[in-house]
Amino acid sequence: MEQMKPLKSWPEAAPRLVAVAAGRAPAEMVIRHGKWVNVQSREVLEGFDIAIAEGRFAAIAPDLSSAIGPETVVIEAAGRYMLPGLCDAHMHIESGMLTPAEFAAAVIPHGTTTMFTDPHEIANVLGLAGVRMMHDEAQLQPVNIFTQMPSCAPSAPGLETTGFEITPEDVAEAMAWPGIIGLGEMMNFPGVINADAKMLAEIAAVQNAGKTVGGHYASPDLGAPFRAYAAGGPADDHEGTCEADAVARVRQGMRAMLRLGSAWYDVESQITAVTEKGLDPRNFILCTDDCHSGTLVHEGHMNRAYRHAVACGCDPLIALQMCTVNTAAHFGLERELGSIAPGRRADVILTSDLATLPVEMVIARGQVVAEAGVLKVPCPHYDWPAHARETVHLGKHLTAEDFAIHAPEGANTVTAKVIGVVENQAPTKALVRELSVADGLAQPDEAQDVAQIALVERHRGTGQVVNGFVSGFGYKGRMAIGSTVAHDSHHMIVVGTDRESMAAVANRLGAMGGGISVWKDGAEIAAVPLPIAGLMSDDPAAEVAARAATMVAAMADCGCALNNAYMQHSLLALVVIPEIRISDLGLVDVTKFQLTELFE
Amino acid sequence: MEQMKPLKSWPEAAPRLVAVAAGRAPAEMVIRHGKWVNVQSREVLEGFDIAIAEGRFAAIAPDLSSAIGPETVVIEAAGRYMLPGLCDAHMHIESGMLTPAEFAAAVIPHGTTTMFTDPHEIANVLGLAGVRMMHDEAQLQPVNIFTQMPSCAPSAPGLETTGFEITPEDVAEAMAWPGIIGLGEMMNFPGVINADAKMLAEIAAVQNAGKTVGGHYASPDLGAPFRAYAAGGPADDHEGTCEADAVARVRQGMRAMLRLGSAWYDVESQITAVTEKGLDPRNFILCTDDCHSGTLVHEGHMNRAYRHAVACGCDPLIALQMCTVNTAAHFGLERELGSIAPGRRADVILTSDLATLPVEMVIARGQVVAEAGVLKVPCPHYDWPAHARETVHLGKHLTAEDFAIHAPEGANTVTAKVIGVVENQAPTKALVRELSVADGLAQPDEAQDVAQIALVERHRGTGQVVNGFVSGFGYKGRMAIGSTVAHDSHHMIVVGTDRESMAAVANRLGAMGGGISVWKDGAEIAAVPLPIAGLMSDDPAAEVAARAATMVAAMADCGCALNNAYMQHSLLALVVIPEIRISDLGLVDVTKFQLTELFE
Repeated sequence: MEQMKPLKSWPEAAPRLVAVAAGRAPAEMVIRHGKWVNVQSREVLEGFDIAIAEGRFAAIAPDLSSAIGPETVVIEAAGRYMLPGLCDAHMHIESGMLTPAEFAAAVIPHGTTTMFTDPHEIANVLGLAGVRMMHDEAQLQPVNIFTQMPSCAPSAPGLETTGFEITPEDVAEAMAWPGIIGLGEMMNFPGVINADAKMLAEIAAVQNAGKTVGGHYASPDLGAPFRAYAAGGPADDHEGTCEADAVARVRQGMRAMLRLGSAWYDVESQITAVTEKGLDPRNFILCTDDCHSGTLVHEGHMNRAYRHAVACGCDPLIALQMCTVNTAAHFGLERELGSIAPGRRADVILTSDLATLPVEMVIARGQVVAEAGVLKVPCPHYDWPAHARETVHLGKHLTAEDFAIHAPEGANTVTAKVIGVVENQAPTKALVRELSVADGLAQPDEAQDVAQIALVERHRGTGQVVNGFVSGFGYKGRMAIGSTVAHDSHHMIVVGTDRESMAAVANRLGAMGGGISVWKDGAEIAAVPLPIAGLMSDDPAAEVAARAATMVAAMADCGCALNNAYMQHSLLALVVIPEIRISDLGLVDVTKFQLTELFE
Repeated sequence: MEQMKPLKSWPEAAPRLVAVAAGRAPAEMVIRHGKWVNVQSREVLEGFDIAIAEGRFAAIAPDLSSAIGPETVVIEAAGRYMLPGLCDAHMHIESGMLTPAEFAAAVIPHGTTTMFTDPHEIANVLGLAGVRMMHDEAQLQPVNIFTQMPSCAPSAPGLETTGFEITPEDVAEAMAWPGIIGLGEMMNFPGVINADAKMLAEIAAVQNAGKTVGGHYASPDLGAPFRAYAAGGPADDHEGTCEADAVARVRQGMRAMLRLGSAWYDVESQITAVTEKGLDPRNFILCTDDCHSGTLVHEGHMNRAYRHAVACGCDPLIALQMCTVNTAAHFGLERELGSIAPGRRADVILTSDLATLPVEMVIARGQVVAEAGVLKVPCPHYDWPAHARETVHLGKHLTAEDFAIHAPEGANTVTAKVIGVVENQAPTKALVRELSVADGLAQPDEAQDVAQIALVERHRGTGQVVNGFVSGFGYKGRMAIGSTVAHDSHHMIVVGTDRESMAAVANRLGAMGGGISVWKDGAEIAAVPLPIAGLMSDDPAAEVAARAATMVAAMADCGCALNNAYMQHSLLALVVIPEIRISDLGLVDVTKFQLTELFE
């Protein structure tokens, strides 16, 4: 495997590009006899060659045999389609539980050559320094990984405590980093609508730097609040779920990002804005937002989103624009990547079929990076410092007593608020359940499907544990599961039927440096170590996916039959989505955005 | 007339915009009951209101009556179309013989609210300082006038001498000015194709500043030279004249600018790339390039180009995109102007009909700037310094002797190269004519339609006159016409049948500080004073147009029946267009790019 050369800018490369295009110098690579999929004109043009120099396109013409010199790498397209590498317009690398390097290694064979990533999760654990680490590993990769500066840590100020906070000053500072492309999704939409000074200051820092402000408007109200959000400056939004959402975003001058992630299915319901309603497609973009490692290993990445869009009835060339030139234009990179045209980064996919998109060869910056699904270049690892690998600070050895829920003095039963998990939905239900008391402690209740849930503080080693109840997982017997992926502040969520097991899980995650652990009958039955920030593994995607599959099987083994059971688990501290959640500060009523008591 | 307020940036305005959109504060202006022409989604949406604050769009919604406060200006659209102000993507203000202020005053009532102007002409006369003066007057206007830094002065190094030269250092310096949007048309396409270091350095300075490089590829060869030019970095081109030109530009990742100027008719022949060939229209843009004041007064500006595109069969909404959002996107201004969407500059046209586009009201930056064809705001004049008004430096009083063409010793006749003017074409023909000799001087010949032509140096006061012959104007009797508009180096071109008259014209232009003067039978019969740089008047367009009309009539009165006779005159020193021209250095063979002798 050959290390990639640093990429020259277009002006730096221009003398070579011009010389090759003019026929005065040989190219570094010539791809011959292909169909040029032109996303600028929206045409497929048969019988073209592509000449590449300095990692950029020098010329596209019917016959570039004159650009072939003794050193030129010649690739035979043999009539196949030559299309631009695919771009993921918004995503969180941490969702794959992989580092940027291993995420890149997983998606390059699928034809992804550009990603716009928002390292929001690590920002909650390690702050600006963590964002910089992600950015720096991204910069090492043989494909284009741009960083969106996270905007909202904490997501819910006053309702949770993060490891670090992101300030407008942090945002302004990050704008000068070489790989920063804009602001990550501005999730605090109520803040924008209310002209919150801190949120508008973050947006201003990004707009003043000439960069792109990512949006996140997660409400069905398309009236005044939505318009106020648009007036605040976010330039895109990927939270739409129906046609009206996409239409409203485009009409109000934003780009509609249609999302197909591991658990997001928002393309089919929105793409009718183009396929049926006939809106100009230029402002529609495909993205994944969140992909699990298993999806990357078994299904694909942006090629999966593209195929799905085509399967939903979208014209293949329009769908391709939605993950190439539209994306590039959105981020001000139209002359840098996203099309096969002179001067742009030479990112090319060779495929035999535009509808099913078998990714037969991937070229990035003028080098073959994958062929027939096999990675052909190194994806270098950043040297993660020790403090990024030691982020689980429990402060003490936890015992069953830390998970004890003391009933009011003398009570035989209690009426408790219970977090109700709803299958296939992010919102929870605020349930109320009558629970028995034993030895002065409120008890979980298998018959009512009520387990205990605990939020274990892990950023500052306070030893603090917030306890509550959860329903919907269906756990049976003596078990516990814990995770340091616990959106968005990423403390540790432990769910269990047994306090000893819960303590064991928490201590195990502390020893492991973070990740996921499932215990049954007093022993660990599955583990997914995520040593980096307690969020990511630097092992290859296939290994992480295999461990994650074991973990999911272990949850089922404990009685859980939910779809996306682990995702439901990891979202139980997401105190921005109704109705009721848990944080390090207590139980949170997310319909009122305030802390609430456990017992009625 | 009310002076415009300085425009706040979107982030500066955001708190107000959000408050208005959210319904917490009244707007400065509300336009009611209109059809929202949405260039983002490409739709017409009936029954919408627009709220404006801080000169920007705050909200567009079905009913914004709640945003009307006691101070709010309410405009009744009464069912009319509300469309974004029109953008001219590439133009030379000097072609109107008007200052930026008077040009703006002339085009605002036609609905033009944004112009991308390349002050190439003044750059030849006054260099970077002259560009800055144009830029500074542009910045004073109530509409958006962005400056493209001229790239090529001189246009033909070694073949002409300009007043000043533009260097890569000048280009880099200008990139920091507030109104600079990129590089003006890179006319030295042979230089780019040959990787000329100076030309690539200019392009690099602009690309490194993140700005747009304007192109100018004036050759029918769409093969390797064109591809090499595209690889050099120019992002657009307005020199295309046929469908294949437009198609090639878009396929190679450039934007095709289709031009309808006073004497350019390049829309009808190229727009078929969209209307018939079906290319994605996003990369097609309308512009004027050059408009005479008479066109502005009598026909229009971008509204004329738009109507023409529609008359050529283009869908009105697509044609509108070609002079609004497409243009804005090209210059990286999509979130700043070019659409009616939150945050953008509030530039709106009200019209009753989308095909014929009567421009009934024009709003720019949230203020009514024109109504029913009448300008409603001041267009402030820059205080042009004396040296910008005193640019005709003849160095001496000229006499007939300065225009004497001495025949070789003892010759009775001479065989002379003659510049052949071809009606309706920019290229000239290299003719050869036998001319008589009298008193040792080669003579013009009315019977052969051969007049004298002289290039009078006017930048450095050298007193130098280069003499030659020209055919095709049809001048009869004793006459002369002189002009200090003499593309591109803008010395003085005098054409005449009589040496005394030629001297009189030259001296008159010297006294007048530049412009155009026509003499017949020993007296001036028309004059167009252009005191600023010898290129522009700061009088209103209607006055300049009237004088220009008198001048054209005077040319006809002298026997000239050519279409665009004056334009032909002013292009005779344009030593980049074949076949033969005149410069301050001598007669130029533009097929060989070298100086040549007058006599065979």
